[in-house]
Amino acid sequence: MTAAEAIWRDIERIRETAPLVHNITNYVVMNTTANALLAIGASPVMAHAAEEVEDMVGLASALVINIGTLSAPWIESMLLAARAARRKEIPVVLDPVGAGATRLRTETALKILKEARPAVLRGNGSEVRALYYFEQATKGVDSRHDAEAALEAARNLSSRFGCAVSVSGPVDVISQGDSVIRVANGHPLMPRVTGLGCIASALTGAFVAVNRSSFDAAAHAMAVMGIAGEIAAERALGPASFQMSFLDTLYELQEKDIRGRLKMEMA
Amino acid sequence: MTAAEAIWRDIERIRETAPLVHNITNYVVMNTTANALLAIGASPVMAHAAEEVEDMVGLASALVINIGTLSAPWIESMLLAARAARRKEIPVVLDPVGAGATRLRTETALKILKEARPAVLRGNGSEVRALYYFEQATKGVDSRHDAEAALEAARNLSSRFGCAVSVSGPVDVISQGDSVIRVANGHPLMPRVTGLGCIASALTGAFVAVNRSSFDAAAHAMAVMGIAGEIAAERALGPASFQMSFLDTLYELQEKDIRGRLKMEMA
Amino acid sequence: MTAAEAIWRDIERIRETAPLVHNITNYVVMNTTANALLAIGASPVMAHAAEEVEDMVGLASALVINIGTLSAPWIESMLLAARAARRKEIPVVLDPVGAGATRLRTETALKILKEARPAVLRGNGSEVRALYYFEQATKGVDSRHDAEAALEAARNLSSRFGCAVSVSGPVDVISQGDSVIRVANGHPLMPRVTGLGCIASALTGAFVAVNRSSFDAAAHAMAVMGIAGEIAAERALGPASFQMSFLDTLYELQEKDIRGRLKMEMA
Repeated sequence: MTAAEAIWRDIERIRETAPLVHNITNYVVMNTTANALLAIGASPVMAHAAEEVEDMVGLASALVINIGTLSAPWIESMLLAARAARRKEIPVVLDPVGAGATRLRTETALKILKEARPAVLRGNGSEVRALYYFEQATKGVDSRHDAEAALEAARNLSSRFGCAVSVSGPVDVISQGDSVIRVANGHPLMPRVTGLGCIASALTGAFVAVNRSSFDAAAHAMAVMGIAGEIAAERALGPASFQMSFLDTLYELQEKDIRGRLKMEMA
Repeated sequence: MTAAEAIWRDIERIRETAPLVHNITNYVVMNTTANALLAIGASPVMAHAAEEVEDMVGLASALVINIGTLSAPWIESMLLAARAARRKEIPVVLDPVGAGATRLRTETALKILKEARPAVLRGNGSEVRALYYFEQATKGVDSRHDAEAALEAARNLSSRFGCAVSVSGPVDVISQGDSVIRVANGHPLMPRVTGLGCIASALTGAFVAVNRSSFDAAAHAMAVMGIAGEIAAERALGPASFQMSFLDTLYELQEKDIRGRLKMEMA
Repeated sequence: MTAAEAIWRDIERIRETAPLVHNITNYVVMNTTANALLAIGASPVMAHAAEEVEDMVGLASALVINIGTLSAPWIESMLLAARAARRKEIPVVLDPVGAGATRLRTETALKILKEARPAVLRGNGSEVRALYYFEQATKGVDSRHDAEAALEAARNLSSRFGCAVSVSGPVDVISQGDSVIRVANGHPLMPRVTGLGCIASALTGAFVAVNRSSFDAAAHAMAVMGIAGEIAAERALGPASFQMSFLDTLYELQEKDIRGRLKMEMA
C-alpha cells in the first residue's frame, strides 16, 4: 500500500465510523476545531468540567488536550482526563500551545506528557524545543523555529515519553524512535489563520482513533492538513476565505487529491 | 392567518423591536449564536457571572440556557438566572446539550427544567429521550435518534414541566399538550456544522420574545432554521460556506421564502 | 506627512515587526479578534490565568483588556496584567463592553481605568457615557447613542484618566485633551456582526504597539476599521460574508485604499 492509499484508508475509516473525539481545548479554537472534525467526518465533543471529563473520555475514541488558554481548573481536568484515557487505553494527543512563552505552559505541558503518556505530541518548532531545551519564547504562540530545528528535541522527547512527535512548519517533521517522516505540503497562508495548528492536533486525534500506529496517524493528519491547505489557497482571497475553503475542502477531499499532491518522504 | 404569515409576523416583530436575548451558552457556539441573533434582527448578550446574571436577565426579553460546556460556576449562574427569569416572567429556552452523555449534563438539565420552568425545551432526539428514559448516549453530543423517536418523551416532558418541547431532526417535532407540529424543512449539511442546534435554541429565544405562544414560537424558529438551511445549501460548497450562507440568509430572509418553502403540518 | 501617509506608515510597521498583542478578552470574539490581528500583521496571544498573565504581558508590545464576558477570576487577572503592563510601560487598551448594562461591568471598567491608566479607552457611545454619567443601559451591549453624544463624557474621561478615548459609531470620535478626530468611514453592516467593536479594540492594540501617540494610534485603527468595512461591504451578501471579506481586506489592504477613501478630520 502506498502512503497515499494508507492516508485514504484512514479518511474512509473516519467517514464510516465517525469516531468521537473528546477535546479539552482552548477558547479561541473550539468552534473551528469542532467544525474541522465534523468536516473530516469525525464527531467532536468539548467537555472540560472535572465532574464529567472521565465519563466523557470513556465514550471517546481519542482525547485531544490543547493548553492554549490554560487556567488552574482546566489543568486539573486535563490531568483527570489524561489519567482516565491512559487507564482505558484511549489514545491522547497533546498540543503544548505556547510552551516556552510562560512557565505555566511549559510546566503544564511536561506534567501532562508525564501523566498521559500521549500517543502524539503535536506542536510547532518553538514549543517542541521549549519542552526539551527549556528555551524562553519571545513571540507568544507563534513559532520562531522551523520544524527541522526541533528535530533533535523531537527525537529525544519521543524516546523519553514513548510518543510520536509531530512538528508543524513549512516542512512538517514527524518523529518516532529512529524514524522520521517529512511532509512538504502546505501553504504560506496557513500561519495567518488562528488555530490551524490546533486543527492539526484535533485531526491527529481523528486519525489516531482509526489507526493503531500513532506515527502513521500523526503523519497522515499533517499530510491532509497540507493538502487541504493547498487546495483551499487556490480559491482564497485572504486568510478568512482561506479558512472557509479549508474546512469545505476537508469535507470534499477525494482520493485523487491525496494521490496527486502528496509530498511525503520517510527517512 | 396562515402559518407562513404568522412566521413572517414574528420575523417582522424581531426586526422592529430587536429584543435583547440573554444567552448563557457554551464556548463553542458563542460567536455563531450571537451572529445568528444579530442576523435575524435580535440583540444578543452573553453574560455568565453569578454577580451579574440577575441584572442582565432583568434587561432581557428572553433567556437562553445552553449546557454545552458546563462547569460548576456556570451551573450556579444558570440557576440564578433561571430563577430571576421566572420571577420576572421572562421566557426561558433550555438546550440540554449532551444530556445522556454524562450524568452531570442529564442532572443539570433536569435541575434547570425544574427550577426555570422554561417556555421551551429544545434539543435533539437523543437528548430529549435521555431526559425522559435516562438513556445513556454513546456518541457525545450528536443524536442517534430522529425527532419522531423522541415524541413520547417530548409529550411527557411537556406535560410534566408545562413547556413546549422542540426536537430537531430531519423532520423537527414540536410538542405541547396534545398538539404536535412537524417541520420538514432543512438540509443534510446542517448537522455537519457545529452549533446549528444551538443556533436553533438561540433563535427560539428571539421568537419567544415576540410571540406569547411558546409552542408557535418554537415551531416558527425551527421553520426559519430549515428554510434558511435550504437556501444556504444552494450556494454552499461545503459546511463552512454553508454556515456563512446560512447567516447571510437569516439576514436577507423575505416573506416569499417562507411562503414558497414552508413544510409545516400540525397534528 | 498626510494622515493617510501616517496610517500607512503604522500599517507597514505592524507588518514588518508583527508586534505581540496580549489579549484578555471575551469568549465570543477570541477567534475573530485573533484572526483580525493576524490579518493586519500582528501576532496575537490570548492568556488569562492569574498564574501567567504577568509573564505573558512582559513579552508583549501591547495589552488589550476587554470585559465582554466577565467573571471574578478574570477580573483578578485583568488587574494583575494591567498593573504589570503599567510597571513595564506597555500600552494598554481597555474595551468596557457592556458598561452600563450591569453594575459589575461599570465598576470593573472604572477599576481597570484607575489601575491600568490605559493608553486608550475604546468603546461605543453608551459605554463611554455610562462610565461618566453612570447611565443604565437598556439594550445589553449594543449602543443607544452615537459617538457624538458621548463627546463630553469622552473629554472628561480623557482628562481624568490621561488617556485617549475612542468612541465608535457611524462617525467615530477620538478625543484627547482639547483635540478631537472624527472618522466618517464605515458601513451599516458593521454593527450587524458580533465583535466588530472588539476587533476595533484589538487593532487599536496593534497600532499603539507601533505608534507612541495613543491619540493618533487610536484614530488610525478606527480609520482602518472603517475603510476595510467599506471595501468588504462591496463584496458581501450579508453579515457573515461581510465578516469574511472584512478579515480578507485587512490582510490585503494597500496604501491606495487608505489614500482614496479616508474621511478623517481633526478639530
